[in-house]
Amino acid sequence: MSKIFNHKLKVYYEDTDAGGVVYYANYLKFFERARTEALANIGLSNLKIKDDYKALIIVKSCSIDYKKSAFLEDELNIKSHIISITKTSFIMSQTIVKNDVTIVEAKIHLVFVNDKVKPIKIPKIILDKFKPYISNIK
Amino acid sequence: MSKIFNHKLKVYYEDTDAGGVVYYANYLKFFERARTEALANIGLSNLKIKDDYKALIIVKSCSIDYKKSAFLEDELNIKSHIISITKTSFIMSQTIVKNDVTIVEAKIHLVFVNDKVKPIKIPKIILDKFKPYISNIK
Amino acid sequence: MSKIFNHKLKVYYEDTDAGGVVYYANYLKFFERARTEALANIGLSNLKIKDDYKALIIVKSCSIDYKKSAFLEDELNIKSHIISITKTSFIMSQTIVKNDVTIVEAKIHLVFVNDKVKPIKIPKIILDKFKPYISNIK
Amino acid sequence: MSKIFNHKLKVYYEDTDAGGVVYYANYLKFFERARTEALANIGLSNLKIKDDYKALIIVKSCSIDYKKSAFLEDELNIKSHIISITKTSFIMSQTIVKNDVTIVEAKIHLVFVNDKVKPIKIPKIILDKFKPYISNIK
Repeated sequence: MSKIFNHKLKVYYEDTDAGGVVYYANYLKFFERARTEALANIGLSNLKIKDDYKALIIVKSCSIDYKKSAFLEDELNIKSHIISITKTSFIMSQTIVKNDVTIVEAKIHLVFVNDKVKPIKIPKIILDKFKPYISNIK
Repeated sequence: MSKIFNHKLKVYYEDTDAGGVVYYANYLKFFERARTEALANIGLSNLKIKDDYKALIIVKSCSIDYKKSAFLEDELNIKSHIISITKTSFIMSQTIVKNDVTIVEAKIHLVFVNDKVKPIKIPKIILDKFKPYISNIK
Repeated sequence: MSKIFNHKLKVYYEDTDAGGVVYYANYLKFFERARTEALANIGLSNLKIKDDYKALIIVKSCSIDYKKSAFLEDELNIKSHIISITKTSFIMSQTIVKNDVTIVEAKIHLVFVNDKVKPIKIPKIILDKFKPYISNIK
Repeated sequence: MSKIFNHKLKVYYEDTDAGGVVYYANYLKFFERARTEALANIGLSNLKIKDDYKALIIVKSCSIDYKKSAFLEDELNIKSHIISITKTSFIMSQTIVKNDVTIVEAKIHLVFVNDKVKPIKIPKIILDKFKPYISNIK
């Protein structure tokens, strides 16, 4: 059974737009905050990965489904897990939930790259830390 | 032959992140600026559509491919056209080009909704204005 | 002795710019998050103030001193207290601290306004809740 | 008679918040865009200053007066000029005007620094280019 990482946040004015809802680009900020906290949760960080492995995790592609809107002062939960992994990259499912209702769903394709932005093998130590978060059900 | 709408912009500090490149969420801002200017180019605006038709154009889903990075002070061109259209929605292809090289490609699914966020028929006057921008090649 | 409200946050990629530091406008986002959490801490929120009093708290002016930079993944503490108050407005001191070093200092002048953006008296219940946070030393 | 640099922009959804107006931090983005374009107008850029002089222009402090709100799709003009200058720094007045009405006024204190963020003398060539934009009236 794979684990899901939960990250909670509140919607502030900065996140919203004149439509009264969270601006569509800002959900990508929420997803990235959740990924950063998911790394922290397994003892990693972007800076540590850079220092220890001269590596960077970059977003190669993503797809986002906007199902419902989030509003000012909403309390949201971002659920993140890994749905597949290769030697150099992995795909995360990230879902934003409000009161048990899914409002935004995303699939984010992330790649480990070196300082020349060339894909590199995911370091074994990191791979081992990722394993509990890899879903069996695609 | 379908038309493509071009919108040029410069990358400012606000758009970049500590990786030295444009932050991945901010390309969605560029796409939305280009869509707003594309509307302006055919005599429309979000406010006008709201006033005249009690309608709103919302993003239902999108997919983005990040091929190369954009950097501070880069001059970018956003190329936008419509690749398909239904009674209530349309899909736009939006591509960010730097010196004739495609750096980011997106498909954005947009829907006309009423003030209860229910899909509505695209008003005929707007449909007619969209037509030259609908691509024949999918 | 007046109280200070502390709000902690981490610097994410979204907050930084190509200079490798937090983008100068984004500290205003941090200040606003801290103000929102300070309200929550005394049982208030922007939505509640709007519902109960048809009132809005807006920023009339602010001054910001940038002393040092904040960097990616820094853990920051925002210290907020009220330094003066009138019938319709109040001035907050908001300071961003990293490892006990002040990096940014701001004074924010906030005004209670009605839905026509006209200043109104701060409701007595709110004033009473603000009192412990009003500094004696200006 | 000193010159004023004008930079025009349109308010997009990304700039606004759930209050229906431009979010207070985002005016700082507008000011920075205007400063970048003012530099471009005299043949300079942040990258060029970095390459040619190993120098960076940073914001040391700023004060902002919010007089009126800007709204979605507003066409704004940012008026910028230099009100005073020292060997290492200068103060700019930046004003946002909508239909000849001033809506936001700011004073921005900018400093030339080296790569260790230490103040350095403004290069003479740059100083000469700044001169026409220095106001006589403080």
